[in-house]
Amino acid sequence: MRFHVLTLFPEAFEGPVRHSMLGRAIQRGLLSVQIIDIRSYTHDIHGTADDYQFGGGHGMVLKPEPIFDAVSDTLSPYPTRDRHAFPVVLLSPQGRKLDQQLVLELATAPGLVLICGHYAGVDERVRTHLATHDISIGDYVLTGGELAAMVIIDAVSRFTPGVVGAADNVQEDSITSGLLQHPLYTRPSDFHGMTVPDVLLSGHHAQIDRWRREESLRRTLENRPDLLDSADLSLTDRAFLAGLGYVGISSLLDDGFESQE
Amino acid sequence: MRFHVLTLFPEAFEGPVRHSMLGRAIQRGLLSVQIIDIRSYTHDIHGTADDYQFGGGHGMVLKPEPIFDAVSDTLSPYPTRDRHAFPVVLLSPQGRKLDQQLVLELATAPGLVLICGHYAGVDERVRTHLATHDISIGDYVLTGGELAAMVIIDAVSRFTPGVVGAADNVQEDSITSGLLQHPLYTRPSDFHGMTVPDVLLSGHHAQIDRWRREESLRRTLENRPDLLDSADLSLTDRAFLAGLGYVGISSLLDDGFESQE
Repeated sequence: MRFHVLTLFPEAFEGPVRHSMLGRAIQRGLLSVQIIDIRSYTHDIHGTADDYQFGGGHGMVLKPEPIFDAVSDTLSPYPTRDRHAFPVVLLSPQGRKLDQQLVLELATAPGLVLICGHYAGVDERVRTHLATHDISIGDYVLTGGELAAMVIIDAVSRFTPGVVGAADNVQEDSITSGLLQHPLYTRPSDFHGMTVPDVLLSGHHAQIDRWRREESLRRTLENRPDLLDSADLSLTDRAFLAGLGYVGISSLLDDGFESQE
Repeated sequence: MRFHVLTLFPEAFEGPVRHSMLGRAIQRGLLSVQIIDIRSYTHDIHGTADDYQFGGGHGMVLKPEPIFDAVSDTLSPYPTRDRHAFPVVLLSPQGRKLDQQLVLELATAPGLVLICGHYAGVDERVRTHLATHDISIGDYVLTGGELAAMVIIDAVSRFTPGVVGAADNVQEDSITSGLLQHPLYTRPSDFHGMTVPDVLLSGHHAQIDRWRREESLRRTLENRPDLLDSADLSLTDRAFLAGLGYVGISSLLDDGFESQE
């Protein structure tokens, strides 16, 4: 997987790209991250990448030419066929919200171009004529697209074989199952009077599995009930949730199906 | 605003904290970011911060002691009164989803402790007995909590007076209004045949304002129709949206109110 990032702040990527999982994966040649300074595609001596907006208003807008030129240069080494299939992602608060399904979709590409917006925004022609995707990482306001690009690089890289170990996939399994992860405990079993639930120390694997599933359901109901509507729930799960007072849309629909059986 | 970040990967913060808006704000003394290595609170020569989980299963769990000790040390210089009000945020996929309202809530604190999860997860006692908040930045899987911490630092810092200039607030205004921002254009007005909408070059401010509002509504309907239900919409807005085929829950409710007038 090859990432090409267009940014006004190349230095911002130093830490995240050099260290941790990503740094190791790059050193091992599993993936590459090219950081491209948008200013190097400007044509005046001041490296002006932004300009006033047409129609008036506060806030500078990123000019289209440097971004079109940088993307064109970036994709030129790729065969024409690949260039057409290459996702060009604009990171902006106006985009489709990132979720794990979109991450999976992006992970199938040979690489990604990531355009970091800044200032008031990016000239609309970048969105309509250059970008194939317009993505937001969440409903909050960030200074620029740099952290959003890092989030996409991190999330997508996990699907490049060899980047994460098998053990690190546990959390992911939990999330792709559609429920929040159950609580985890490690030693000491008694930490200043805060103890580990007895069942986890019992050695009864069936009971442990059941406890974990129930805590997972309980936590999902408490923090993210929206996830339950699309989660894969057994009859036992539904009975447990019903005991906690949950009446979901999907459980009503399924009741309909069950009565036909 | 003082940020205290507990992490296993202190180096990951180098770029984002030293450069761009954040770096400048730190240099000017507007905010501070202290990066605390969780391993410096471990007690064996290997700096072991994780351990196997009780009950079996893949994936290592971050031990409670180093995190409790690090938070205790971090908060000790603060007056007792502040310590009780100090948000201790665990970053985990199990948490409440970050949105701009939660950012605003966090921004009122004197500072934040941010605990970056890693590996399979963090010992549950950190969540139940130490953290005041459990936050996720979105429905996607990341390697660890580092990028999530950076996102919170960036989003919260924007509310510290002097960190961002007035011009940078345009985007934010757009988002807090509950609609996606309208398209932005800058020079050239004709870029390889891609032109700027005539209205923006017309000089008719009322028409420009109307075009911007309509494009904002259109884009929100296309990309994030969920936002329309809580957006502040005028009758003119509703008429325009109705013309695009939108029938929202809130518009039905408001029709009820209007007929009573």
